[in-house]
Amino acid sequence: MPYFDYNATTPLSPAAREAWLKASEEAWQNSSSAHRGGTRVKVLLQHARENLATVIGCEPERIEFTSGATESVHAIARHLASALPIELKVAVNPTEHLCVINAVRVYFSADRIQWLKVDGEGRIDLAETESLLEAGGLGAIWMMAANNETGVLQPWEKVAASCKKAGVQFVCDAAQWWGKIAGGGLPQADWVIAAGHKFGAPKRMSFLLRPKTVEGFSVLPIKTDDGKPHGGTQDYPGVVCLVAALIDAERNHVMLESDRERLRGQFEVKLEQRLPGVRILSGGGERLWNTVSVVMPHGENHRWVQRLDKRGFEVSTGSACSSGSESPSHVLAAMGVPGDEMRRVLRISASWSTTPADWDALLEALVAVAEEVKPADNVVSI
Amino acid sequence: MPYFDYNATTPLSPAAREAWLKASEEAWQNSSSAHRGGTRVKVLLQHARENLATVIGCEPERIEFTSGATESVHAIARHLASALPIELKVAVNPTEHLCVINAVRVYFSADRIQWLKVDGEGRIDLAETESLLEAGGLGAIWMMAANNETGVLQPWEKVAASCKKAGVQFVCDAAQWWGKIAGGGLPQADWVIAAGHKFGAPKRMSFLLRPKTVEGFSVLPIKTDDGKPHGGTQDYPGVVCLVAALIDAERNHVMLESDRERLRGQFEVKLEQRLPGVRILSGGGERLWNTVSVVMPHGENHRWVQRLDKRGFEVSTGSACSSGSESPSHVLAAMGVPGDEMRRVLRISASWSTTPADWDALLEALVAVAEEVKPADNVVSI
Repeated sequence: MPYFDYNATTPLSPAAREAWLKASEEAWQNSSSAHRGGTRVKVLLQHARENLATVIGCEPERIEFTSGATESVHAIARHLASALPIELKVAVNPTEHLCVINAVRVYFSADRIQWLKVDGEGRIDLAETESLLEAGGLGAIWMMAANNETGVLQPWEKVAASCKKAGVQFVCDAAQWWGKIAGGGLPQADWVIAAGHKFGAPKRMSFLLRPKTVEGFSVLPIKTDDGKPHGGTQDYPGVVCLVAALIDAERNHVMLESDRERLRGQFEVKLEQRLPGVRILSGGGERLWNTVSVVMPHGENHRWVQRLDKRGFEVSTGSACSSGSESPSHVLAAMGVPGDEMRRVLRISASWSTTPADWDALLEALVAVAEEVKPADNVVSI
Repeated sequence: MPYFDYNATTPLSPAAREAWLKASEEAWQNSSSAHRGGTRVKVLLQHARENLATVIGCEPERIEFTSGATESVHAIARHLASALPIELKVAVNPTEHLCVINAVRVYFSADRIQWLKVDGEGRIDLAETESLLEAGGLGAIWMMAANNETGVLQPWEKVAASCKKAGVQFVCDAAQWWGKIAGGGLPQADWVIAAGHKFGAPKRMSFLLRPKTVEGFSVLPIKTDDGKPHGGTQDYPGVVCLVAALIDAERNHVMLESDRERLRGQFEVKLEQRLPGVRILSGGGERLWNTVSVVMPHGENHRWVQRLDKRGFEVSTGSACSSGSESPSHVLAAMGVPGDEMRRVLRISASWSTTPADWDALLEALVAVAEEVKPADNVVSI
């Protein structure tokens, strides 16, 4: 499959499709209805929540189903901004997804936000984080598990442990982690964000983890009279479909991680051999096994995307959410990538089903396109 | 089909299922991705929006896709509370859905809310509304098109026209209208709310209409950098599925309205003959063709629901959203229904596929259950 943009979104998994169709046929009633049809859906919803909790390894009551990561992010940011004492700040990793950065800026005044330092590979400075925690004055730390553009893994387990010791809340955006790496450790964070459509669930269906006991949290800014935190009719077909997708990924895929990492590594070695001058970003430490963020030796990345597309390979210039805009990536900027390099960055993101032959075919396409977008070729229309 | 709780939710329509499966197979890519796969989904999304706009009869840019009526309600209430000058009030129909009443109370202080008068059938007092508009001081009127508990239709077209003349914004919750009555007139309101799962679309997929030009409105409280008002990844399969469901209802069903109204009328006449002492609520004027709200002559409504359920008929005590709670209906309270009657109210709501035989079977079941829940029978466990 020539699609190499899995960090943008994934196709619906067969397990998810099957679960959705079955539930839409058999359990479409309103879980709030008092008749047995409604009661049955209510029981099934709880069953799906418990299944998910078992897979994740957390208490079922920590799970709230939401309509996507962006909604989850807003709900958590809104809650923390009002629940934390006003003198406490939130420390935020600057390479978070734009939706996090936007939401934090909506709910926290600028003087309550402390931006964390990151190094040239986009990893946070653990020593700085520790000293901030020791200094006091923080109410929460917000840090992603895995970066969507570079695949960099943050040391979130260490930060979670330090936060716990310091009595500071830890919010972990694991949108790119779930479904790619086993998520069993994530419930160590107080708040965890997921994005269903990154692991084979439908768009507009996701979940978050909240602390087991928390006062006044709700996805919309109100508790409805029956105590449902979201309000609105519960979407059992959507929920069971989401759960099926994650269970499928956790049971059948994540143990293949080291094998897939090896394929990505072979691709990168060959790429550096065939196209001298490429620079793999964030390659110096732990990364998602599926992601390659690479500065191409020449040519604007938009031309690369279009040329590769014509050859049947779908890649990205960076995060999908910002790829429509011409503004440079805030992630690469925070890493200190120079402007001329930023414009040559491609993001390649694979899936479990990406084969060695797919990687090899992509390599050949990149080599061919490198010829096409050579500086001398700039006058040729694309 | 013995299900008589269609106002709570509807099964997925075959047209919607087919559209969703096709899109999930062929157009699952991220519409923000720069490659052709993403661009294609972006074009298809716009095409779906234009199709919906054609069916509705409004400008495509008035449509925002949301994850449900509750989200839409919150977005509109939040926007109006901050966009309207602080000295202007919002006039609210007291028989709105609870999610509206809750949301208005979140965003507007109590002294900015003017509750409208309703009569014993739950219809607003048009003369009062007109005089409020003439007196000035109103920024918006919020009124549903059709009530979920009684089926009462409000004179929203007249109110929309008066609001337009007075320069006051009109918000119309048409959650129970779309799919049951042709919605071509609804775009006269400045803001219109829909609930996809009330007309055969999946839960967690809906839309709203906003004014053609409006500043600073977004579903989440921020515009993302690319100007998408919702933020998050667009859900094309969900959107096309929603649009297919509404088109199906508008094209194939709503012309059957008078026929279905006749069936409901025959049922009510027979019910009054067979069970003297029943009282049909809000029967004195225009109602949804599918809804019967009826005070039974004796027996608590929860017992009726359970007994009917055992006979295979699913009905409701009122709105599904509040049926789990024991608190009395605010709709019936606003209508002045006495407490002892409120506890005997059943809501029966049919669909296009409900046949004369279904209505007759329900009638016989009601007559049989009336015997079972007779006062002398109260000691018998249910």
